[in-house]
Amino acid sequence: MTDTTRLPTREGVIEAAERIAAILPPTPLLPVEIYGTRCWVKAENLQPIGAFKIRGAWNRLSSLNDEERTMGVVAVSSGNHAQGVAWAARRLGIAATIVMPADAPSVKLEGTRSLGAKIVTYDRHGEDRDVVAEKLIEESGGVLVHAFGDPWVIEGQGSAGLEAEAQLGRQPSRFIACCGGGGLTAGLALACPDAAVIPVEPEGWDMVGQSLAKGDLVHAQIDAPKTICDALQPTATKQINLDLLMGRSEPGVAITDDEVRAAQRFAFTQLHIVVEPGGAAALAAALAGKVPLDEATVLMVTGGNVDPDAFAETIRTTS
Amino acid sequence: MTDTTRLPTREGVIEAAERIAAILPPTPLLPVEIYGTRCWVKAENLQPIGAFKIRGAWNRLSSLNDEERTMGVVAVSSGNHAQGVAWAARRLGIAATIVMPADAPSVKLEGTRSLGAKIVTYDRHGEDRDVVAEKLIEESGGVLVHAFGDPWVIEGQGSAGLEAEAQLGRQPSRFIACCGGGGLTAGLALACPDAAVIPVEPEGWDMVGQSLAKGDLVHAQIDAPKTICDALQPTATKQINLDLLMGRSEPGVAITDDEVRAAQRFAFTQLHIVVEPGGAAALAAALAGKVPLDEATVLMVTGGNVDPDAFAETIRTTS
Repeated sequence: MTDTTRLPTREGVIEAAERIAAILPPTPLLPVEIYGTRCWVKAENLQPIGAFKIRGAWNRLSSLNDEERTMGVVAVSSGNHAQGVAWAARRLGIAATIVMPADAPSVKLEGTRSLGAKIVTYDRHGEDRDVVAEKLIEESGGVLVHAFGDPWVIEGQGSAGLEAEAQLGRQPSRFIACCGGGGLTAGLALACPDAAVIPVEPEGWDMVGQSLAKGDLVHAQIDAPKTICDALQPTATKQINLDLLMGRSEPGVAITDDEVRAAQRFAFTQLHIVVEPGGAAALAAALAGKVPLDEATVLMVTGGNVDPDAFAETIRTTS
Repeated sequence: MTDTTRLPTREGVIEAAERIAAILPPTPLLPVEIYGTRCWVKAENLQPIGAFKIRGAWNRLSSLNDEERTMGVVAVSSGNHAQGVAWAARRLGIAATIVMPADAPSVKLEGTRSLGAKIVTYDRHGEDRDVVAEKLIEESGGVLVHAFGDPWVIEGQGSAGLEAEAQLGRQPSRFIACCGGGGLTAGLALACPDAAVIPVEPEGWDMVGQSLAKGDLVHAQIDAPKTICDALQPTATKQINLDLLMGRSEPGVAITDDEVRAAQRFAFTQLHIVVEPGGAAALAAALAGKVPLDEATVLMVTGGNVDPDAFAETIRTTS
């Protein structure tokens, strides 16, 4: 049985990058000028499933042994990890069951279903998604593919950092990355030991930033405010992620819905890419002047799975 | 004086590709599945000015001699060539005057102005843009940078073909490319001698397709129908373009506004990129089943400079 309690390593990131390069072309590193500073956008929204989550999912599922593959996989996700797991499962011929919030954007629910996964929905405000998943695993014997607290998933997400380093021709000075549970940020910290990693989270949902400041896990408040960043609302990070980020991260940054919408508009008009709210968090922090920038700074743009009507509303210039 | 009557060559395309690679990262070649066939999208809408026109403009302007640079340049464009010339002129410290239709999308007018070019507008339905440009050139002594009938411009656009070939690891079987005056299609034909090149044009504006069928230049009808493809309405191609395409092109294809909008929506939901109407023409032809596809087919997605309100209207699922 694969051991999910092992610690992720830089060697593991390098192996993950090789596995991923064998099936996915690199996403582009696009030049961008922000307040006169030229820096870089790593456009992970251009992955086949529209999000970086395909990396960790592929790395995890392709590392399962034959017995585990037969049992199938179970994942819990607001939508992008779901599509990553469904995509990898279909390629590998593994059955996938995904626990998703009933109010996930319909593009994410439909995207996951169209990739052949079985979806079980839960009420984000009334049910504990981990309990739903545990019950499914008990029933099916399937393997849990955690969205961020898993060594293969962390190593897989870290491959984006190695790709950016190769494209830039040097280690980035700093990654600015949206942060939900901390899978991507932990992976980037592992991948590029000389780079700072700044997690960007929605106001009131900055559990990683607060945990880093306290040096211990902090859980979200039950009355945490609403955010349009549907992908960035985990209730807490995990110790495995926190350990990798401690001492490696500049302080975390929190952004507002309006800052996120401004970043989505900037990406539309200046970069000609479609970015979902959570995927625009790093760009939002940069445009809001909340993070330092230089010519070796990489802004992770992580997802593009956005409801068309919500996106239309965001980019419209007239009301 | 640079000789604009010389014939473009494959050597010239190779030199252009080197000049362009020195200042612009390659645009991504994105995998896409259409009706079960995996083929490729060359995402030129991700260029800094949001269109492939930056290639030809940079190749032309960086090839001017010192005297020509002092006199400045004059271009005629519906918007994307305008931004390409303005971008290149600013980098090289050359004065640029651009003749643009008064009804060009405001994003293109503003984009060109913000790059420091002087804009002279004309009435698309009442004035001859070439006469306006000639008068400007007489007054200023500036050098005309033709949008498609110029050897350096054709060679510059062809560099996109060499880039795609390098990314694919072989010559494409076929380029499917939107076509206005025929600068890009002629450049691709030069760049990759073993590839077919299919020009895609709006219905009623298929002047290249008609010229290829007749073997001689055909001009647009005065009462040609309206099209949302503002970038694809030249009155005719030029002999230099037609000569390069004759015998190299499969028959041209014409597409409708509805097919173009469907392609813009597909690019939004499946590829997470922003594509303007003219830039979506090749994808429209593929989705409409009007062109053959295989695993070495490259669809050129050429521009992303679209009015936000028009784009919002196109992607909305409710009216």
